[in-house]
Amino acid sequence: MFERICIVGVGMIGGSVARAARAKQWCGSITGFGRHEAGLKRAVELGVIDDYQLDLGEAVKGADLVVFCSPVGTFEDLFRQLQADWSPNTLYTDVGSTKGSVVAAIRKVFGRIPENFVPAHPIAGSENNGVEASRVDLLHQRRVILTPDEDTDATMLKTCQSFWEALGAEVCCMSVDHHDTVLAATSHLPHVLAFALVELLRSKEDEQELFKYAAGGFKDFTRIASSSPTMWADICMANADKIISLLDDYKQSMDDIGRCLQTQDRDSLLSFFEDANDARRQYLEQLK
Amino acid sequence: MFERICIVGVGMIGGSVARAARAKQWCGSITGFGRHEAGLKRAVELGVIDDYQLDLGEAVKGADLVVFCSPVGTFEDLFRQLQADWSPNTLYTDVGSTKGSVVAAIRKVFGRIPENFVPAHPIAGSENNGVEASRVDLLHQRRVILTPDEDTDATMLKTCQSFWEALGAEVCCMSVDHHDTVLAATSHLPHVLAFALVELLRSKEDEQELFKYAAGGFKDFTRIASSSPTMWADICMANADKIISLLDDYKQSMDDIGRCLQTQDRDSLLSFFEDANDARRQYLEQLK
Repeated sequence: MFERICIVGVGMIGGSVARAARAKQWCGSITGFGRHEAGLKRAVELGVIDDYQLDLGEAVKGADLVVFCSPVGTFEDLFRQLQADWSPNTLYTDVGSTKGSVVAAIRKVFGRIPENFVPAHPIAGSENNGVEASRVDLLHQRRVILTPDEDTDATMLKTCQSFWEALGAEVCCMSVDHHDTVLAATSHLPHVLAFALVELLRSKEDEQELFKYAAGGFKDFTRIASSSPTMWADICMANADKIISLLDDYKQSMDDIGRCLQTQDRDSLLSFFEDANDARRQYLEQLK
Repeated sequence: MFERICIVGVGMIGGSVARAARAKQWCGSITGFGRHEAGLKRAVELGVIDDYQLDLGEAVKGADLVVFCSPVGTFEDLFRQLQADWSPNTLYTDVGSTKGSVVAAIRKVFGRIPENFVPAHPIAGSENNGVEASRVDLLHQRRVILTPDEDTDATMLKTCQSFWEALGAEVCCMSVDHHDTVLAATSHLPHVLAFALVELLRSKEDEQELFKYAAGGFKDFTRIASSSPTMWADICMANADKIISLLDDYKQSMDDIGRCLQTQDRDSLLSFFEDANDARRQYLEQLK
C-alpha cells in the first residue's frame, strides 16, 4: 500500500497500472506526469489519476512509489531531472520493454543503479495507445519480469514484487541480459517482422491492390504493426544488438526455405513446417 | 440450384461449402469423396453431406456440380482419374489457394483447360482443420476469386459466380498470374514467415524458455503457424516462384532494418515503421 503513486507517462500501460492500483486499493492518491496536458486531463476525467503535474519535480513530490511508463527513449532525461530529488524512501520501478537500455540510462546518470530502483517489465500490451486504451485488467495473469541486481535493496524488491502481484501479475526475476534476449525473440523481432511485411505490401500496393484481398490470417499477423511506431523505434534502438543477431538467424531461415522452394524439396519444407506447427501446439497447451 | 453436388475432400473448406450450399438451398443432395472413411462418416453424422463414396468415379456420378476441396497437390491425380468420365454438363470448380498450379495440372491431363472448369479461390480459412471445423458462414462476406480464361464457357462461368454468391461471397475475376501474385504477398508469405518465427524460437527454446514469456502479440502473429503443414507445403511448392521473389524482397527489408539498428539510425527506422503503421490503418479502414 502506497500513500501516493506517481505515474510518469499516463498512456495505455501507465493508465492500466493506475487503474489496477486503485482497484486493488494499493494507493491513497495517484498523480500523473506527462508532457501533453490534454491526455492528462482526459486521465483525470476518466478517474485513472487524481491529479497531474506538468513539472516532473512537482509530480514526484511526496510519492512513495514512482512508476516510469513513458517510452524507454525518454528515461535518461527523466533520471537526470530527478537525480537531485531522488528519495531514498521511495520505490522506483518502470514498465520499459528493454531492460539493458534502462539500466544503462540510470547508470549513466547516477554512476550506478540506485538500490531503490527495481527495473520491471509487465509482458502485457495492446496495439492501441493512450489512456483511453488503458484497462483495469491489463496485468491480470500476465507476467512481470523484474531484473534486480546484487545492489537492489531487498525490502524494496519485496515491496515491488508485492505491488505487481497485487495488480494481478505473476512476477519472476531474471538477469537484464536474459530478459533482453527473451524479449527480442518473443516480442521485438515479431514486431519488426510485422512492420516489414506491411511495408513490403504497401510498396507494391499501387499496381496490385494487395490489401483488398488480404484475409484474416494477414490481419492477425500484422495486428502488432498497428502499434506505436515511436515506441517501437525506441525499443529497437534500445535492444539493437539482440535484434540484429535474430534478424541474421531469421534471414538464414529465409535462405533455407528459399532453397527448399527453388529445388522443390517438399519433404524438407514439410518437416520444417511440422516442427513449427508442433512447437506452437505446445506453446498453446502451456497457456492453458 | 444443383441436383447433386459432389465435394471432393470434405475438410474444413469442403465441409463449409457443403453446409452453406445446403443452408442456401442450392442443392438436392451432397455426396462427399475422400480417402479417409472416418472423416466422411463424421461428415454424414454432422449432416454436412448426405452420403459418401471412396471411389471417385462413383462419387461424381450424376453430379451437376463438382467442387475440388482437397490439397492442391492432389489435383493432377484427381483430374487424371476423372478424365474418362468428365461430363460436359457438369460444372467443375475448386477452392485451391494457388491457381497457376491447378491450371497447369488440368492442362497436363487434358492438354487444355476444359471449358466447364472454373478455377476458384475463396479467400477464407482457419488454422483449424477437418470437417469438425467447417462452418456454414465461412464464406459470408468473403471474397472468392475466379480465374477463367477466354475458353471458359460463359454460362458455366455465370452459374459458378451465382453459386459462390449464393453462399454469401463477393465474387471477382482476375488472371491466374495476378491471383498468384496477390496471394503470395497477402497469404503465402505471411504463413512462411509465421512458421519460420516459431521454428526459430523452437531452435533456441531449450536454453532460454522463450515461449513461457511470449505474450498476445506473439500469439496472434503466429496463429497461422497452427495451419496444416501438409496443406502449406503443397501451396508453397505450387507457388514457389512468386514466394521466392517475395522472400528476396523481404530479406532486403531485413537488411535495411538491420542497417538502421547497426548505425542507430532511429529516424529512418521510425519513418519505416510509420509508413507501415499508416498502411495498416488504411487497410483496417477499408475493411469497415
